[in-house]
Amino acid sequence: MLDVSAIAKRAKEVSRVLAQADQARRDEALFKIADQIWLSREDILAANRVDVEGGKALGLKPAMIDRLTLTEQRIAGIVNDLRSVANLPDPVGEVFETSVLPNGLKIHKQRVPLGVLAVIYESRPNVTVDVTGLALKSGNCAILRGGSETILTNRALAGPIYAGLELSGLPRDVIQLIDQPDRSLVTDMLLQEQYIDMVIPRGGAGLHEFCKKNSRIPVITGGIGICHLFIDATANLDAALKVVENAKVQRPTVCNALDTILVHQSVAGPFLPAVVERLSQLGVTFRADSQALAALNVDGSEAPVLAAGPEDFDTEWLSLVLGMKVVGGLDEAMAHIAQHSTAHSDGILTQDEANANRFIREVDSAAVYVNASTRFTDGAQLGLGAEVAISTQRLHARGPMGLRELTTFKWVIQGDYHTRP
Amino acid sequence: MLDVSAIAKRAKEVSRVLAQADQARRDEALFKIADQIWLSREDILAANRVDVEGGKALGLKPAMIDRLTLTEQRIAGIVNDLRSVANLPDPVGEVFETSVLPNGLKIHKQRVPLGVLAVIYESRPNVTVDVTGLALKSGNCAILRGGSETILTNRALAGPIYAGLELSGLPRDVIQLIDQPDRSLVTDMLLQEQYIDMVIPRGGAGLHEFCKKNSRIPVITGGIGICHLFIDATANLDAALKVVENAKVQRPTVCNALDTILVHQSVAGPFLPAVVERLSQLGVTFRADSQALAALNVDGSEAPVLAAGPEDFDTEWLSLVLGMKVVGGLDEAMAHIAQHSTAHSDGILTQDEANANRFIREVDSAAVYVNASTRFTDGAQLGLGAEVAISTQRLHARGPMGLRELTTFKWVIQGDYHTRP
Repeated sequence: MLDVSAIAKRAKEVSRVLAQADQARRDEALFKIADQIWLSREDILAANRVDVEGGKALGLKPAMIDRLTLTEQRIAGIVNDLRSVANLPDPVGEVFETSVLPNGLKIHKQRVPLGVLAVIYESRPNVTVDVTGLALKSGNCAILRGGSETILTNRALAGPIYAGLELSGLPRDVIQLIDQPDRSLVTDMLLQEQYIDMVIPRGGAGLHEFCKKNSRIPVITGGIGICHLFIDATANLDAALKVVENAKVQRPTVCNALDTILVHQSVAGPFLPAVVERLSQLGVTFRADSQALAALNVDGSEAPVLAAGPEDFDTEWLSLVLGMKVVGGLDEAMAHIAQHSTAHSDGILTQDEANANRFIREVDSAAVYVNASTRFTDGAQLGLGAEVAISTQRLHARGPMGLRELTTFKWVIQGDYHTRP
Repeated sequence: MLDVSAIAKRAKEVSRVLAQADQARRDEALFKIADQIWLSREDILAANRVDVEGGKALGLKPAMIDRLTLTEQRIAGIVNDLRSVANLPDPVGEVFETSVLPNGLKIHKQRVPLGVLAVIYESRPNVTVDVTGLALKSGNCAILRGGSETILTNRALAGPIYAGLELSGLPRDVIQLIDQPDRSLVTDMLLQEQYIDMVIPRGGAGLHEFCKKNSRIPVITGGIGICHLFIDATANLDAALKVVENAKVQRPTVCNALDTILVHQSVAGPFLPAVVERLSQLGVTFRADSQALAALNVDGSEAPVLAAGPEDFDTEWLSLVLGMKVVGGLDEAMAHIAQHSTAHSDGILTQDEANANRFIREVDSAAVYVNASTRFTDGAQLGLGAEVAISTQRLHARGPMGLRELTTFKWVIQGDYHTRP
């Protein structure tokens, strides 16, 4: 059985070494790891085939098997992503909020790595490499705990990761893989608050809840989005239809996909039938409240439009299902959002500037939209270069998290033998 | 028995109202509360006298009794502080990181209140008013849990606080006081993660540890400082002596007071005797390692210089005791700090710029000093206007926390019916 405490302690020790490594060396490590992974691709694919067979034997769903499966093309993508991260600006060492106090003390803040990250994730083996890249780029050590169904693939990836680290002169333990399936190892990890600075769960709501409940280390929670668009009376309905389609259909399995539309009663008559006509052709089914059913002139007993049940407006669909509700106006729309949103991504489609401004001011979600698809809540889309997670918590980081959110800072105070009066 | 869950739920409800209140109304509430407290000072002093008598009957130490005691002058100070906070710039609504993406999406971040703060504190009744002011100024609701020894004083303060809130048109429940002594109420509070956004313990290490262990809500830990100054070979020793005196003696009971000096072996001969001579006159006693004893030419068996015991370099003294250790140079000094510091405030006194820069780069404490007293780690000293806490954790906020650290932000994304390609 692995000694998780020893692993965490070792990570803390080498985090001091890594924090002092300059940008060039950390970037070199990423390039070397990329090279080593590419050189080892046959071994990685062989290991992955065994994991995939094992997954099929266990009866994993096809979507899960797909996420688990590597191909040479996917490995090429993973390796390219690693090189892209290496080419991003260095978040470490950035100086900000520089000032000179009236007493002559010179102050600034300077960004430093957080220290040690623990990342707990499920089936996708690309996360092993992604997180390695993000951690090293931001000067952090990482302890990685992948899913039990990808253990062989992750072990095969660990080899070239360690080799790349050693080739670049960094201690290989800056990245450590927990490659045993025992769940109690995760629980142990969550108690190493002396050594681990941040826990990042990457997976479903159950994993997030488990981490939050059992961790003495700060946990970045997020990735759960019940997302809304309010179609106001003045919205450009043709354009709104395209936005709704994009937000619902483009990639329905992700957290920033649309879950519910709230439609102003004055435009429900034309808009809702247009939504059903267009999106049902794309495979979408609907859960409509009574007013929406009336606007659609259906009774909600047959596909594609069913009457919404009591839990439907509190469900993150992650599939081609769309909730529909008719509202009297902006206030009712915002009240619905306040009650049902997970505060991930919510928007208004409107030509009314006053309503847009009220929506921006009063809706308190990580991302608040005016006239755009909720699908933009994404680190790459919003210009962060890399995405670590999408936080729906309020402390430290909110919304898409980039490399900077894997750092903290120190105050630097320089004087001339200053004493406090 | 109070229903803590209902209190927390109510706080979350009214937090939405408070978040929409403009700056003028929140500031007005602070002024009205200040007026009401001043008008009620006789009642407050009368209640406080009963608490103080009770504390004496319980055998509380004189320092504790002093912290618990209010006078008309202290109330005047509390009221003035409240007005000063009202006059600070508003942290809410601040817009930052504005940009326009190549696709035309307009993005900015906007500061918003965290929501609901829970503050758990010990004997000082001024905290009740301080926290009320800081919370309202930053648009946050607060649930206050003071010490059992100040319950009557806190109840007497709650009246004018509620009156001031009502006079300004804010819901009185934006501030709620838990005024029953049962400790299980604190435990209950720490589990209300659905409603409470941040827990701020203000008290000793035991309280911080209790909150960290029992809370499902993020806890701001801090306020524990084992602080070091390294006196390098090139330090201006006369000036260094004044800095050491200031850092140790000016206010020894606080977290940014000096605990240990690390003295370069080449200057231990002149410097350590000068420290003992000067500081012993001010009541300081010393815990010296063997080399320091040798430099002082004493055996460590009698006051004021005792031989350092095994725990002495891991003790936050909070009193007129100073640890002394002779080191071979910068590396040994930084290794000692890495091992023994609580990463609160650590400094170097030197004329050597290369050493100063290495110290800044390699010592990872919330505040890193060059040629200044550690006593400057303080919100007011560093220009924050008000201080909420001094964080020694790495996430969200590090070092002195001002009003801004009681906020989070939302992303605001405005487009022209943009869809994601």
